[in-house]
Amino acid sequence: MFDFKYYTPTKVIFGKNTESRVAELIREFGGTKVLIHYGSGSVMRSGLLQRVTDTLDAAGIGYVTLGGAVPNPHLGLVYEGIELCKKENVDFLLAVGGGSALDSAKAIGYGVANGGDVWDFYDYKRTAEGCLPLGVILTIAATGSEMSDSSVITKEEGLVKRGYSSDYGRCKFAIMNPELTMTLPDYQTACGCTDIMMHTMERYFTNGGNMEITDAIAEGLLRTVKKNALILKDNPKDYDARAEVMWAGSLSHNGLTGCGNDGGDWMTHKLEHELGGLYDVAHGAGLAAIWGSWARYVYKDCLPRFKKFALNVMGVADQGSDEEIALRGIEAMEDFYRSINMPTNLRELGVEPTEEELVLMAKKCAIGVGGEKGSAKVLDEKAMLAIYRASM
Amino acid sequence: MFDFKYYTPTKVIFGKNTESRVAELIREFGGTKVLIHYGSGSVMRSGLLQRVTDTLDAAGIGYVTLGGAVPNPHLGLVYEGIELCKKENVDFLLAVGGGSALDSAKAIGYGVANGGDVWDFYDYKRTAEGCLPLGVILTIAATGSEMSDSSVITKEEGLVKRGYSSDYGRCKFAIMNPELTMTLPDYQTACGCTDIMMHTMERYFTNGGNMEITDAIAEGLLRTVKKNALILKDNPKDYDARAEVMWAGSLSHNGLTGCGNDGGDWMTHKLEHELGGLYDVAHGAGLAAIWGSWARYVYKDCLPRFKKFALNVMGVADQGSDEEIALRGIEAMEDFYRSINMPTNLRELGVEPTEEELVLMAKKCAIGVGGEKGSAKVLDEKAMLAIYRASM
Repeated sequence: MFDFKYYTPTKVIFGKNTESRVAELIREFGGTKVLIHYGSGSVMRSGLLQRVTDTLDAAGIGYVTLGGAVPNPHLGLVYEGIELCKKENVDFLLAVGGGSALDSAKAIGYGVANGGDVWDFYDYKRTAEGCLPLGVILTIAATGSEMSDSSVITKEEGLVKRGYSSDYGRCKFAIMNPELTMTLPDYQTACGCTDIMMHTMERYFTNGGNMEITDAIAEGLLRTVKKNALILKDNPKDYDARAEVMWAGSLSHNGLTGCGNDGGDWMTHKLEHELGGLYDVAHGAGLAAIWGSWARYVYKDCLPRFKKFALNVMGVADQGSDEEIALRGIEAMEDFYRSINMPTNLRELGVEPTEEELVLMAKKCAIGVGGEKGSAKVLDEKAMLAIYRASM
Repeated sequence: MFDFKYYTPTKVIFGKNTESRVAELIREFGGTKVLIHYGSGSVMRSGLLQRVTDTLDAAGIGYVTLGGAVPNPHLGLVYEGIELCKKENVDFLLAVGGGSALDSAKAIGYGVANGGDVWDFYDYKRTAEGCLPLGVILTIAATGSEMSDSSVITKEEGLVKRGYSSDYGRCKFAIMNPELTMTLPDYQTACGCTDIMMHTMERYFTNGGNMEITDAIAEGLLRTVKKNALILKDNPKDYDARAEVMWAGSLSHNGLTGCGNDGGDWMTHKLEHELGGLYDVAHGAGLAAIWGSWARYVYKDCLPRFKKFALNVMGVADQGSDEEIALRGIEAMEDFYRSINMPTNLRELGVEPTEEELVLMAKKCAIGVGGEKGSAKVLDEKAMLAIYRASM
């Protein structure tokens, strides 16, 4: 068991119509001039953005808006947001949307509070010493960014996708109304469920430390998301299922499911990041497409955890050798992905990289992680390439 | 499913030798002059207090000390602490000990920050509008006060034991080193495990709302504490078991195991509070002595939850009627209490109230909860008396 820090200061306001409390919460955390940052037009079409600005108008809180955050949010828009904040003397950031708008807002916050080129933080060159306070009205359950310390930004030049983590980037508040996620396309809902499960699975498949209570929470979370993802496939407007998945999304990535271990494996995420940088695929689908190949490559080096996962999460029968049980667990997970229309390889994901592109992704991935990384099994560039090839 | 707020801003620093970071943490949260509040002499005998003051000396942080906090901490000492803080211009409270020292410190913090008589808050007459910032070095895993918003104080006059909850009373940091709990007497360890389980069970046995992920977390927590309480009975110095129980103690009472429900039942706690006020028994043992009688009185009105508890926590076989399964779950829980030398009735607890005292406790309990209370089953004064009688 490893020592750990657990720090989740975000005030979560969860339930129906909770977005009506946004002005009160901004005021509680000292905001007087807000940048409202959002992504696609859906928050406009649904009337959510209008309701938010009406609420701020009524409360006498000033604001400017910046739309256009895209999945794998781009650095260019971050720079634009930083300039806008400076020009308008913004002192609070409100993201309205999913992880894309929120991660973009976090990067804007780092840029305004620290000066210099904000990409430095994502390029491991500097450490942030602050961030504009920020809050979120969440409309997509997926990235867990609403309670996490992390954000991921893509630099358009060279399509470099990198993450940065800092306690300064933790939201002051997160407004989470499951009803706001009901209009998501099925594909995006499934991608979100995959991303949520992966945030806990990355922490679960380790060779470093373990804690029974953390495992029990992780396994319970995974079973819950698995069950409710299937419910949502048939009944996308099931409130309780939306709520289960939404709350799981926060708990899967706020640190709770990693307490006591070595920090997790994270190589499926790292491998997907290069894919996402090159192809702009949906993050969750990219993770699903890679995971099986990663799991088959590493499971023998992390057998007790893969066996535990098979038994306690996937409900595999406790029969046969540990390897057989572990493999049946991996197969059951892939079956689950297929059952919610997620891909289990790159072809199903809809991309067909050339051998040169696979080599390039492995190379970029190895550079991105500083040579080699992983806890279930340490992967070097050669291993990364082997997994990319196996995922074709 | 109910809407909920989830707010756990306490920075938890968990692991070996983490108390060495106390000065750094006090400084991070702005403390310059500290009241170190502790309970029994054990923190002096163990050398912990000396190490803490050495650390503050080395960091140049001023402090005064106040010992003497007792289980069911007394209002008199709280008043003394408030005067000491005012006299010495204390701006940060550091509790070193368990829930008694910490709850006493919270009350001191309310008193200093709000003025007037601090008992008003515990007597439901006023609402706190602030609290001195406070942190804790935890030496007993039990009350969960290190991450909760609650504190419990006993007024000596009439032995009135009351709780008060406010987000202002949440710790800025909690230093949790499982090694510091290794020297606890076995009885106190068992009391702590009971209290921890009860904090989650109070939230679990409800008729209002439910959330699958909350249930999965609650059940996993209960199984973990149950297993590790038995390990600690034989090996009180087992680090991993101490750590599992200590972290469970925080998670059981920080709100996590109640997300989505109606706030919980809490009648076992309320019934024990009157007992604790009258007899000064250990809180955990008091809860164990009452729970079985409470459970048998209410289970038919909360059958689905008692059945789920029997199957998923106590491992009872899924055979027979729901009532039979529920009853076997209650029996299994009482067997567990006995196995860690906890009482399952008042006689085993070592107290034998007269009929007049039972009537008095029921009357005080009913007044304390405003007439009637409970979620598994709403209890009035008559019901409370029946449970007290059954627990003899």
